[in-house]
Amino acid sequence: MPEATKALPSITDAEFAERGERLQALVAQAGFDVLLVNASESDFANVRYLTDYWPVFESAGVVVPPAGPLTLLIGPESDAYAGDRSRLARIRKLSEYRESADPVYPDIDVASYASVFEEVGVVDPRRIGIAGSFATNFVMLESLRAAFPRAELRRADDLLTRLRAIKSPAELDCLRAAFAISEEALDRALDEIAPGMTELQVVGTVQEAIYARGAEYEGMVQYVLSGPNSRHAISRATDRVLRAGEVIQLNVSARVGGYSSGVGRPISLGPLRADQREILEFGLQAHRATASWLAAGVTASDVAKRFRRFYSEHGRDALYLYGPCHGLGLIEVEPPWMEETSDYPLAENMTFQIDTFVINEEFGARWENGARITSDGVELLSDRRMEIIEVG
Amino acid sequence: MPEATKALPSITDAEFAERGERLQALVAQAGFDVLLVNASESDFANVRYLTDYWPVFESAGVVVPPAGPLTLLIGPESDAYAGDRSRLARIRKLSEYRESADPVYPDIDVASYASVFEEVGVVDPRRIGIAGSFATNFVMLESLRAAFPRAELRRADDLLTRLRAIKSPAELDCLRAAFAISEEALDRALDEIAPGMTELQVVGTVQEAIYARGAEYEGMVQYVLSGPNSRHAISRATDRVLRAGEVIQLNVSARVGGYSSGVGRPISLGPLRADQREILEFGLQAHRATASWLAAGVTASDVAKRFRRFYSEHGRDALYLYGPCHGLGLIEVEPPWMEETSDYPLAENMTFQIDTFVINEEFGARWENGARITSDGVELLSDRRMEIIEVG
Repeated sequence: MPEATKALPSITDAEFAERGERLQALVAQAGFDVLLVNASESDFANVRYLTDYWPVFESAGVVVPPAGPLTLLIGPESDAYAGDRSRLARIRKLSEYRESADPVYPDIDVASYASVFEEVGVVDPRRIGIAGSFATNFVMLESLRAAFPRAELRRADDLLTRLRAIKSPAELDCLRAAFAISEEALDRALDEIAPGMTELQVVGTVQEAIYARGAEYEGMVQYVLSGPNSRHAISRATDRVLRAGEVIQLNVSARVGGYSSGVGRPISLGPLRADQREILEFGLQAHRATASWLAAGVTASDVAKRFRRFYSEHGRDALYLYGPCHGLGLIEVEPPWMEETSDYPLAENMTFQIDTFVINEEFGARWENGARITSDGVELLSDRRMEIIEVG
Repeated sequence: MPEATKALPSITDAEFAERGERLQALVAQAGFDVLLVNASESDFANVRYLTDYWPVFESAGVVVPPAGPLTLLIGPESDAYAGDRSRLARIRKLSEYRESADPVYPDIDVASYASVFEEVGVVDPRRIGIAGSFATNFVMLESLRAAFPRAELRRADDLLTRLRAIKSPAELDCLRAAFAISEEALDRALDEIAPGMTELQVVGTVQEAIYARGAEYEGMVQYVLSGPNSRHAISRATDRVLRAGEVIQLNVSARVGGYSSGVGRPISLGPLRADQREILEFGLQAHRATASWLAAGVTASDVAKRFRRFYSEHGRDALYLYGPCHGLGLIEVEPPWMEETSDYPLAENMTFQIDTFVINEEFGARWENGARITSDGVELLSDRRMEIIEVG
């Protein structure tokens, strides 16, 4: 077993404090009376970004007034956990952040939105910003509307997106460490994978490998998608038994200090047919071309258009599904995306997954690698086995 | 490596169809024009219950009119995955179910709430029930309110809770299989755990063990919580290094056919001190007593009150945190809970986790076992190593 990895990077208290201050400036500038940032077990990024706390079973939130202290909101059962974990000292329990099993907790005293807001000087707010909209649920919203019937609730996800898009040196170190673990776990999967195993057994091998090396969790569910399942852009592994001659979509993912990684490769158990190989060679070429188009100052939509054109120019329109890149950080897929509608310029220290997918009726093949935007190109966060991989 | 486990149980198409029909009868009876059931990556139970589909990155929903076909709602990227996985034939993509990275997908055609409702005969609804309230997010709700300004949106989680509370024979088989895997993974963890390993390395061992035996995923995050971390009622494992003489909260969890399990034991690396052992013996006694109080016809709140009294009668009030049981099924913690406010009667084939927690300033100790309610008692779904466990 590899050494326990106390050398893995993390984010300092000072950097967490700075994030809060920068966000408060944006809240004041946007004219919100208060910003409420929410997170769930699976969509935890914004709260983790501000507090290092990430919930399980329950939800979590952060109350961000334009000035004054930030407050972490937790569910009734996470007292001891959040106390040991949160970088924010001020923590309040709210019933609205309870788990979906919907317990009453008659023994536990809880605060309310009104009491928590009032503690930080927010009384009778009229403009409440909501970030983490996708993790802000019906129970929270009904409670907010009842407590503040005169307030307008407005989506403010962009405030967090702006902060999170450019990565700090410490964030980049976390990403690099996560990708290094994912690459080692990929090696391990390629050593062990064999016909007769199920997709899920390969997942188990990958899981053991990432935790042995100090990963704190999967960065996303591990994809081991074989045969027809390889055509899924999003999926979960199953008990399907692997067979020789099929394309398998392998995407291996470790998380370090909160930061996610994903190293994706199409592989075959045994030799590929010539027609399969030809398609994989095109995908690999499209992936490398995409990497070569990235640099600070380039407009994101131009990369997306060029990528789409690349398929047409090679007579491969039928293989197109989507692409070419999406944001990478605390979540393996985070904003901003790189689509034909994306009119922002790439900037130094933005991080993306270069995510290249080719698909036909029989199989899908995907390559994923992390990339940091530099002044004149990219730093690749992973590049292991960027070749046609035929195992055994 | 154990054999790939094709013998593991699952739910038949006929049972999925029956669930839908029973739910439609409840929707009609409650007087809703339509019921919208939502789910997220981490809170997926209600949608999985109706369709076998469970989302990743994106959300999912089910549109349930009082009569006519049910519709699975998915995000724009899950077409191929949902097509292969869903037991419902009618599937529609909605932008509202996209991932939180908030892509635009200019190339993908999507439906709308209005178009999907209209397809199943729901026009100008005035009473829309919402189930999966904790997974119904701001983006969905803003879209619903814009499309149906005259409709009342009302929480209807209880309809699903009523259906899900009593388990069928096939559901019980999934639970039994999940607990059997968790017990084997517990054995494996006890074989391998040693001072000097991190909590997370033990998690890796458990993960490898559950997937090797055919589990489709963890049933909840694996708890390996040592020393002060053992005091957390809810938590995530960390890179803390395990030491001899500390109490460790181990909770091992496999999922089969959608159904979750959790086998929790407090353990010590090396011999316990006498005062630690005495507390663990009390907890074990409280756990066994709780199991002996359960049977069909017993009122849930009576169990909770009796449990609370058990601590007082033994002069152990200071060790009380919560308890004594919570619902078990697709989620390791699901409704109904068993609290002092729970006035429902236990019924045959309800399933619970008996969840016993004792806590002091130094450590927490927890036992968790699954139990099926029978006419005169319980069938325990796990009972491995229900003893004081000192490893090595």
